[in-house]
Amino acid sequence: MKNSVGREIPRELIEQGWQPYQGKDAYNGTEFQKVGPKIKVADQGSEEKVLNSIEEAIRACGLKDGMTLSFHHHFRDGDYIVETVMREIVRLGFRDMKLACSSIGSAAPIVADCIETGVVTGLTTSGIRDRIGEAVSHGKLKDIAILRTHGGRIRAIEQGKIHIDVAFVGAPSCDAYGNASGKGGKSNCGSLSYAEIDVMYADQVVVITDTLVPFPNKPSHIEGIYVDYVVEVNEIGNPKKIASAAARMTTNPKDLMIAEDCVRVMRALPYFVDGFSFQTGVGGPSIATTIFLREHLKELGIKIGWIVGGVSTHMVNLMKEGLVGCIADVQDFDLGAIESLGTDPRHFDISVSEYANPFNKGAFINKLDFVILSALEIDTDFNVNVLTGSDGVLRGAAGGHPDTAACAKCCIIVTPLVRGRIPTVCDRVVTVTTAGDSIDVLVTDHGIAVNPLRQDLIKHLNAAGIEHVDIHTLRDKAYSIVGQPDDIQFEDRVVAIVEARDGTVMDVVRQVKPFSISED
Amino acid sequence: MKNSVGREIPRELIEQGWQPYQGKDAYNGTEFQKVGPKIKVADQGSEEKVLNSIEEAIRACGLKDGMTLSFHHHFRDGDYIVETVMREIVRLGFRDMKLACSSIGSAAPIVADCIETGVVTGLTTSGIRDRIGEAVSHGKLKDIAILRTHGGRIRAIEQGKIHIDVAFVGAPSCDAYGNASGKGGKSNCGSLSYAEIDVMYADQVVVITDTLVPFPNKPSHIEGIYVDYVVEVNEIGNPKKIASAAARMTTNPKDLMIAEDCVRVMRALPYFVDGFSFQTGVGGPSIATTIFLREHLKELGIKIGWIVGGVSTHMVNLMKEGLVGCIADVQDFDLGAIESLGTDPRHFDISVSEYANPFNKGAFINKLDFVILSALEIDTDFNVNVLTGSDGVLRGAAGGHPDTAACAKCCIIVTPLVRGRIPTVCDRVVTVTTAGDSIDVLVTDHGIAVNPLRQDLIKHLNAAGIEHVDIHTLRDKAYSIVGQPDDIQFEDRVVAIVEARDGTVMDVVRQVKPFSISED
Repeated sequence: MKNSVGREIPRELIEQGWQPYQGKDAYNGTEFQKVGPKIKVADQGSEEKVLNSIEEAIRACGLKDGMTLSFHHHFRDGDYIVETVMREIVRLGFRDMKLACSSIGSAAPIVADCIETGVVTGLTTSGIRDRIGEAVSHGKLKDIAILRTHGGRIRAIEQGKIHIDVAFVGAPSCDAYGNASGKGGKSNCGSLSYAEIDVMYADQVVVITDTLVPFPNKPSHIEGIYVDYVVEVNEIGNPKKIASAAARMTTNPKDLMIAEDCVRVMRALPYFVDGFSFQTGVGGPSIATTIFLREHLKELGIKIGWIVGGVSTHMVNLMKEGLVGCIADVQDFDLGAIESLGTDPRHFDISVSEYANPFNKGAFINKLDFVILSALEIDTDFNVNVLTGSDGVLRGAAGGHPDTAACAKCCIIVTPLVRGRIPTVCDRVVTVTTAGDSIDVLVTDHGIAVNPLRQDLIKHLNAAGIEHVDIHTLRDKAYSIVGQPDDIQFEDRVVAIVEARDGTVMDVVRQVKPFSISED
Repeated sequence: MKNSVGREIPRELIEQGWQPYQGKDAYNGTEFQKVGPKIKVADQGSEEKVLNSIEEAIRACGLKDGMTLSFHHHFRDGDYIVETVMREIVRLGFRDMKLACSSIGSAAPIVADCIETGVVTGLTTSGIRDRIGEAVSHGKLKDIAILRTHGGRIRAIEQGKIHIDVAFVGAPSCDAYGNASGKGGKSNCGSLSYAEIDVMYADQVVVITDTLVPFPNKPSHIEGIYVDYVVEVNEIGNPKKIASAAARMTTNPKDLMIAEDCVRVMRALPYFVDGFSFQTGVGGPSIATTIFLREHLKELGIKIGWIVGGVSTHMVNLMKEGLVGCIADVQDFDLGAIESLGTDPRHFDISVSEYANPFNKGAFINKLDFVILSALEIDTDFNVNVLTGSDGVLRGAAGGHPDTAACAKCCIIVTPLVRGRIPTVCDRVVTVTTAGDSIDVLVTDHGIAVNPLRQDLIKHLNAAGIEHVDIHTLRDKAYSIVGQPDDIQFEDRVVAIVEARDGTVMDVVRQVKPFSISED
């Protein structure tokens, strides 16, 4: 059965109850029943929840083979929690664990080993990279991995599709009763929004901190009423590693050109008025766009009403200059953003449900005017791939990409036309992570294309004299520069499901053929 | 069947599944399953939730006879919401409504009319007063009313015992997407904590505001992700009427004497050390206690670590003087407290689950050192009545009384020995709202008594040379002053269940005999 982006959904999955993706608004107005978590009533006599070690906490939780553990990714490449906890899991001889991560990256190579040895047999995450991505793509994970969007993960937890037995939360500060914050410690990460849903729904919750503070640790992102145990360790992470190289301002002339064109497109549209809302990621052209916006805002004497999502210093600086009303934060990408969160009252955190949950009564992104996003590939139907590399191996993150693209009034993809020997614009992306029905404009270093679904935008660009071409022209140009690559060879076995934000199947990722190992 | 405070629980109730109260720690360590709310997925196309009138909102919610509506009591005697909404309910011809109020008082006399006419047939609340209390006590409500503690209400909602069809929330400021706050408007009430659980669990939520503000209204106590509709009206309430006469500093010499003795008792106990935690209500002796604490704290060079619960200006002043570390607020009792909340970072709000929910992983009150509470009556088993008057008519509020008494290391009841012609200390309270197992010390204007269950406290008072007597001595003294009153005559019919915080039956309230009408 094919879904609405033309991807074949294997019969086995349909038989298991999976539904094919039917378009970005298919679930609108439907009703659903949230599940409720199980609660163990606190022993009134026990005023502290502090245990001496992660091993003690694992034992206190009654951890068993086959259980689902959750982790958050606020420390990104600087995270020590996943590695530390999984080392204990291995040492204590557990098997068949399922991981439910908000995202997982290069900071926890042990997870790749665990997948190889069967200590970890299940995985749901929004991002997957490096050796973990390779292990899954090479068919080492026993279960099919499920790749979810940030909003889709909330929905899945609230629907009971993800049931977390034990949530492990790394928290920069915590009191003995479990009130935990992303600030106030020696290793601050800012927002803890991705961990909030886990603690609310997990059967048991362990907060791991390196800064135990007096009760009550308020304001807290994690409320002690949800926390079973607190463990103090030496270090939970390295905040300096939160900022990736990608988060620095680019000097690449291609990126700067793309960013300038992106801002020209924005300015030509009717949403570019005082108070508009804005989101972007941390890629080179995205950050450059944020910075180039400054002059345009000043020239027109308008300001951005609010920014939502992951936050970088560049956004904070615009706010400090009075060019942004406020920032609704779910994640901090660098030390400047971490410092600003909660210090400036205009910069506050929101829950990930408030940010991007498709199945609530209205997330922030439902009101988003512009989102600027990157792509590994985009095809002539405007379908975007941000998950699999040119070798077919998992090495990206859906994150909030499909969520914000589906909701924003104008979603602009900014990307160079080719990367190395790889065309970005192509006939058919390897993996659809964000459906073409959600993408409005593509800005490359070789021209601009507008989704024909958005004739309204085309009129505005024409009126402003902004040149744009059919996306097929950009594809042809890309192929003329680097040639049309051969199709990647896959085995039949499905190793991962790319779940749309509403829980349907957007695409599947199949096991790569053995020879691709040597390419990597 | 008798419960552990010796009250007979009618067989019909046991047959309906009610359990008798078994002591304050009976549920400790048990597990329970929370229910989940039903969610209608927001129409992405609709960025606003604003309707033109309460009638429109009632129609949009698809209100039907027999549904349960919820209201909060943050505006106390100054609330306009219950009256306004119920007037529409009456006008539109609805019948058989069930009300789930966090508390209800003198501000909504229409509810008493609705009970008489059958527009309202069910009621759960923590407080009940004036004509509404009379209507219930005289058997006018079709169902048995259920009187719940503040913590017990959260538990009941999370367990699915209270299912709210439509929650009406009066909010001093709100944006068009439902992000609502207790501040930022023209009629500020401060905290909105009692409304939070309603919006999280109700099938549909209507926010009523008199100050519509731009999106996003942050910080918000009520998140727009839970809100279906927003209605703007002229006035939601009168904040000046939040403060009752009881909240002013007393000049009554009896009250001052009681307060002085209360502080002497506190100071003699080992909990009275730097950083202790403290809660009190708004009665005369309670407020006087807060004020008298100042000199003792200064003399000893210590400070209160934190205050929790309802907040008055007296507490805020202590914080400003550096004598209180921070205030965890669920309700504001006067304009000074409203002004301070969130303005001073040491004064923040917490959810009512964080405050007093007995069935979570640890509420603030589990860590409470001292709570100072009042009583309408206290008997020789230390059982306290704060619900029914000397005529047997409902005219009080359980509120957080049973919650905090059960949890605090030391619960002190402060009350004059007699009020008018009524003895406060007696053989048997008319209605048990707080079990004697939760009460530690009684301080009256005629002496102090300690619960014999607390031999540890007795030793400390003896060591400090603080005189105290057997509670029977105080009862005898009370009876010698005003005489022993005759037992109140009741009909057989149960009109209200006094539910213990864990969901068991603490007591029942029966219909008063007709002749008592003329006394009232």
